[in-house]
Amino acid sequence: MVSIYNFSAGPSLLPREVMEQVQAEFLDWNGTGLSVMEMSHRSNAYESIIHRAEADLRELLAIPEDYAVVFMQGGGVGQFDAVPLNLRPEGKSADYIVTGDWSKKALLSASRTGYAHMALSNASSHHSDLPIRAEGNFNRDAAYLHFCSNETISGVEFPDLPDLPADVPWIADMSSNILSRPTTVSRYGLIYASAQKNIGPAGFSLVVVHRDLLHKAHPLTPAVLNYTVLAENGSMYNTPPTFAIYVAGLVFQWLLKQGGLRAIEQKNKDKAQLVYKTLDASSLFKCPVAPAARSLMNIPFTSGKSDIDARFLRFVEPRGLVQLKGHKSVGGMRASLYNAMPLEGIRALTEALRDFEKSADF
Amino acid sequence: MVSIYNFSAGPSLLPREVMEQVQAEFLDWNGTGLSVMEMSHRSNAYESIIHRAEADLRELLAIPEDYAVVFMQGGGVGQFDAVPLNLRPEGKSADYIVTGDWSKKALLSASRTGYAHMALSNASSHHSDLPIRAEGNFNRDAAYLHFCSNETISGVEFPDLPDLPADVPWIADMSSNILSRPTTVSRYGLIYASAQKNIGPAGFSLVVVHRDLLHKAHPLTPAVLNYTVLAENGSMYNTPPTFAIYVAGLVFQWLLKQGGLRAIEQKNKDKAQLVYKTLDASSLFKCPVAPAARSLMNIPFTSGKSDIDARFLRFVEPRGLVQLKGHKSVGGMRASLYNAMPLEGIRALTEALRDFEKSADF
Repeated sequence: MVSIYNFSAGPSLLPREVMEQVQAEFLDWNGTGLSVMEMSHRSNAYESIIHRAEADLRELLAIPEDYAVVFMQGGGVGQFDAVPLNLRPEGKSADYIVTGDWSKKALLSASRTGYAHMALSNASSHHSDLPIRAEGNFNRDAAYLHFCSNETISGVEFPDLPDLPADVPWIADMSSNILSRPTTVSRYGLIYASAQKNIGPAGFSLVVVHRDLLHKAHPLTPAVLNYTVLAENGSMYNTPPTFAIYVAGLVFQWLLKQGGLRAIEQKNKDKAQLVYKTLDASSLFKCPVAPAARSLMNIPFTSGKSDIDARFLRFVEPRGLVQLKGHKSVGGMRASLYNAMPLEGIRALTEALRDFEKSADF
Repeated sequence: MVSIYNFSAGPSLLPREVMEQVQAEFLDWNGTGLSVMEMSHRSNAYESIIHRAEADLRELLAIPEDYAVVFMQGGGVGQFDAVPLNLRPEGKSADYIVTGDWSKKALLSASRTGYAHMALSNASSHHSDLPIRAEGNFNRDAAYLHFCSNETISGVEFPDLPDLPADVPWIADMSSNILSRPTTVSRYGLIYASAQKNIGPAGFSLVVVHRDLLHKAHPLTPAVLNYTVLAENGSMYNTPPTFAIYVAGLVFQWLLKQGGLRAIEQKNKDKAQLVYKTLDASSLFKCPVAPAARSLMNIPFTSGKSDIDARFLRFVEPRGLVQLKGHKSVGGMRASLYNAMPLEGIRALTEALRDFEKSADF
């Protein structure tokens, strides 16, 4: 049987060891005779699970004590509304940087409910390079400056500490690159990420927020999207998505065993480099992203011809390379190389790229 | 090894057959080589899962075509804010019936963001009987009338069609008794339920809403809690909690195999009757709920003495009867007998009640 390598942009593959452990203890967690899925969130057993998950996450990201960690429902799109509801006082504006579809959606959500300003964008490069700070028009009185640290569709990634004004708190959507490299949390006001890429199963989002930003929510903010309410109740104001958080906790343990974020960053660099090198050497396929802006997580590429792209997708499927189709808005292919993608998957992909190119006269 | 019977009020036990199937196909769903947890929600495989889940649910509850079915994140507490945000126009009020802690919380949430009125309550019976309609003060101009069909803590359950004014749409929180009996959906404007009792894993809520109630949301309603946005996008406006919905879909299949809701209602009646009969025959324990109001799902009981209750909980633990402790607000014990609780669990509980009473001189 052929090995399956799952390049989905999300929900995406999780570490094999974690998946095998979840399966093995699915009906009986730690001798309790209960599945984690069937435990009261107020039980001692479950409290030990969620507390360890938070502690391991704090260790991985070296989260300072003055930051709260919150597990919330609603994913990244929930945060598009939660951020302005919680952090933008009425009448104030917020600055947004647009580098692709996701940051554009975040800006549109914020514009729907109040004042939001596109302070900077990389539209001049068609979202294929990092934006140029000098082209920005930043508002020093903004409630915050929001950006997306990695655009899953266009494949553009900011460095950990981007060259951006530090006058107002940075709010970063790290949905697709959180935990893929060390992050200088202290430079951010708030970091959020949907779970379904490098964290765990779809169905929740992770928020790391400086405590100074709490207690500012609009009165209409729903409790389940209120950072203050969740932070003050240890993410247990209401029943949390217990099983998803348990799986995420196992992913955090797996990351610590890998050597933490410095070690995983090196692996991610090595993996992405192999793919970019193959694409740059190809005369058939190309990645449209400028080298300095290239994401370690999501690599869009195309032959420029939709029939050839479709043939490539058919060519790789029997080799076990699945969910490689590009986002419907841009077409082509997209290889998502999250933490859990093993080197063997990368080798299978680069080999397939070369073999396909040799297989016919294009 | 002793069998474990899990009486948790939620998250609670799921059907054993479902749990075994989830474990068996955890790493490879239907020959895809992928876990459901790792599938893109836009993949054909996953779309087949969520579509079947909705179709099976529509069959089980006989949901008319003019009702939308929505899978949302945020649980029941999310709905406490979503209902007024979506359905109460600015300046209008909404009526609430309070029969216990959960309906009180729903009223408090609605009061926080606008006008809400406690139209009726069962406070005179200390939440131990159904409220008396004649004592109500209903507002014929209210946006809706909200009630909780089963109070998980006090153990008070309304019949399917309670004796309540039908001037305004009924909104029912069915978190703890949905799918336990047939429901006349057409009499309701909107039904919601958190997932973690009779539906599936914690982390989402189910909403069944008449389409006439869509398109009324307050502009600040977050997209992930907006019925219209979710209904118009088939619960796929954003990434849904894919794995939790898959498990719920298997629970729906299991219910259909049991013979549907009429058959499961009979089983639930038989199970609850055994427990109530034992409690009524006991000279040590009693259930404080009036016979006509007694829930088939959650049975609170106590000896009236906290030291004896604590001894009982220690007595039953080696027999595999777990998570029987009452809610912290009321103490004592609570047996939750959701659909998935087998008759053997009920027999083990009633036997333990009798044996404990015989075991000592109280």
